[in-house]
Amino acid sequence: MEAARGIADLGYKAVLIEKRERLGGTPDEAQYAALTPDLRSAPKAIGEMVDAVNNHANVEVMCDTTVTSSTGSVGDFKISATQGGKDITIEAGAVIITTGFTHFDPGRETQKYGYYEHDDVITLVDAEKMFSSGNFVRPSNGEKPKRVCFIQCVGSRDRQIGNEYCSKVCCGMSSKQAIEIREMLPDCKVFIFYIDMRMYGYWENEIYWPAQEKHKVNYIKGMATEIIKKGDQLIVKGEDTTLRRPMEVPMDMVILAVGMEPSQGTKDMANVFGVKQNQYGFIETTGGPLNTVSTEVPGVFAAGACTGPADLEDSVSMAGAAAMKAIASVRLVPA
Amino acid sequence: MEAARGIADLGYKAVLIEKRERLGGTPDEAQYAALTPDLRSAPKAIGEMVDAVNNHANVEVMCDTTVTSSTGSVGDFKISATQGGKDITIEAGAVIITTGFTHFDPGRETQKYGYYEHDDVITLVDAEKMFSSGNFVRPSNGEKPKRVCFIQCVGSRDRQIGNEYCSKVCCGMSSKQAIEIREMLPDCKVFIFYIDMRMYGYWENEIYWPAQEKHKVNYIKGMATEIIKKGDQLIVKGEDTTLRRPMEVPMDMVILAVGMEPSQGTKDMANVFGVKQNQYGFIETTGGPLNTVSTEVPGVFAAGACTGPADLEDSVSMAGAAAMKAIASVRLVPA
Repeated sequence: MEAARGIADLGYKAVLIEKRERLGGTPDEAQYAALTPDLRSAPKAIGEMVDAVNNHANVEVMCDTTVTSSTGSVGDFKISATQGGKDITIEAGAVIITTGFTHFDPGRETQKYGYYEHDDVITLVDAEKMFSSGNFVRPSNGEKPKRVCFIQCVGSRDRQIGNEYCSKVCCGMSSKQAIEIREMLPDCKVFIFYIDMRMYGYWENEIYWPAQEKHKVNYIKGMATEIIKKGDQLIVKGEDTTLRRPMEVPMDMVILAVGMEPSQGTKDMANVFGVKQNQYGFIETTGGPLNTVSTEVPGVFAAGACTGPADLEDSVSMAGAAAMKAIASVRLVPA
Repeated sequence: MEAARGIADLGYKAVLIEKRERLGGTPDEAQYAALTPDLRSAPKAIGEMVDAVNNHANVEVMCDTTVTSSTGSVGDFKISATQGGKDITIEAGAVIITTGFTHFDPGRETQKYGYYEHDDVITLVDAEKMFSSGNFVRPSNGEKPKRVCFIQCVGSRDRQIGNEYCSKVCCGMSSKQAIEIREMLPDCKVFIFYIDMRMYGYWENEIYWPAQEKHKVNYIKGMATEIIKKGDQLIVKGEDTTLRRPMEVPMDMVILAVGMEPSQGTKDMANVFGVKQNQYGFIETTGGPLNTVSTEVPGVFAAGACTGPADLEDSVSMAGAAAMKAIASVRLVPA
């Protein structure tokens, strides 16, 4: 949406193709309640972005539309898509892929957290949905939890499953949610089990210290390796690396800080437009740190979490840069 | 340079004002040897950026030029500057501030590292200069060091001095330099003392694991609090938080991972253009995570480390976004 608005603001026409029946991306689909780090209402903020493109004379929004193939090259792409079951063709000078990420599925493979077995083991995404509905309770019995913990790096920094990367946003998002829980339920103790706290830039000051000092969230350096059920409660097993001992901690709810993986749309569009994917399936941009949005294919750009873990700031900056470079690429095509 | 090139590539004229006598910014001024994370030659990479703007018909480069005041508003700024002692006026529709950061001075105030007392205590910046000259030796005696350590978070995450933020790049840059030292001096042991390793996104895989596994760099979770001299060596005192005990480790050289502070140029330009600075003196952008480059003043944008700690990717993405928004702001001015 930011890239489309940028192109439109530059006086060019943007066609915004969305597979879903409405705009808003993952924050809308997963029903995020509040943005990280500023706790602004996600429906409101994302809604404003949706309105901006819907109301822009230079943006044509095509929902319920899936791109299936592409021919041509920079300055002259012919893109085939299905729109509500009908075949259509879209002509474009340049393409920006912004297909984002998908949340890691913590129920799969090697994960010992019992996500699919224990009702009270949920993810950051499930928690956002509960915040959005204004009803944060234990799924097993509908009661308010007294003890909640977050487990960091679920599906990230994990070689066993091949995701060696850090997903960048989970530490911040967990700290944000911890603050929200403490505000909603002042009697609830909240713990965050982490490896390293990745609170870069201002997040340190915006969420980490307020979580600790104002909201009394407990940060424990330790890896949780297994969750079992004991009576009405969950027992989180692992190692407390600060206290140097095995831990077994009872909790009412456990929130798994799931990382990012490339979405199916990202893999599909990489194939359609012939751009390289890295070992994880994210789209590979060229030029190292000095060019964040260009791909190997002239006229095809990528922005946001389809290129790898990205926070909102990254995604919005990259979208603006991609809008600029996409228009520049078309202007520079020899007539 | 990236923002100027973007504006020029969009078909508009960019005036690039540089206080120094040549382009290249901090990487040039501080003689960076190699970029983080891809170890590409900094003079070569930055040189290409300099050439791109110098050779662009739409970019006018003004070196040795300092902006002193500004009147007017979006679409019609009149900017006064001195160029080689002469007063000049520049007309512009929009302004992008890209005045970057300055390295924290580890010799000041509360720092117990003896930066100004001990020859063999240097900073990341000093080390880059030595790498650039191809001569990494102990300043005190010109000999190759056998034991080198990095101390993280010097001037960052430090409330005592008022810099609560994480400077974002020092963990990555230290790991990069550790790899370079191990490659140059295979007999030299290299240690990194850290609080949290901030290796977000792909850096985990690009520098952190190779540093540990391929290059045998030792990461020690611990805070170094003081450096004293003992005979020919330095003694690093502090706490090893993994081993849970005070440490006193002998070193031949200590490299302080100094963080970012707002540059004087950033503070000056904030005043000239009337944009808000945050509590640290960096320029405050509006819109939270959904707008990374706009300031409160219409037509005035900021990109890169003048807005706060930023890595190369951040700075380049923001520059592209700022180029787009600057041109959009001028186009949207009612005639």
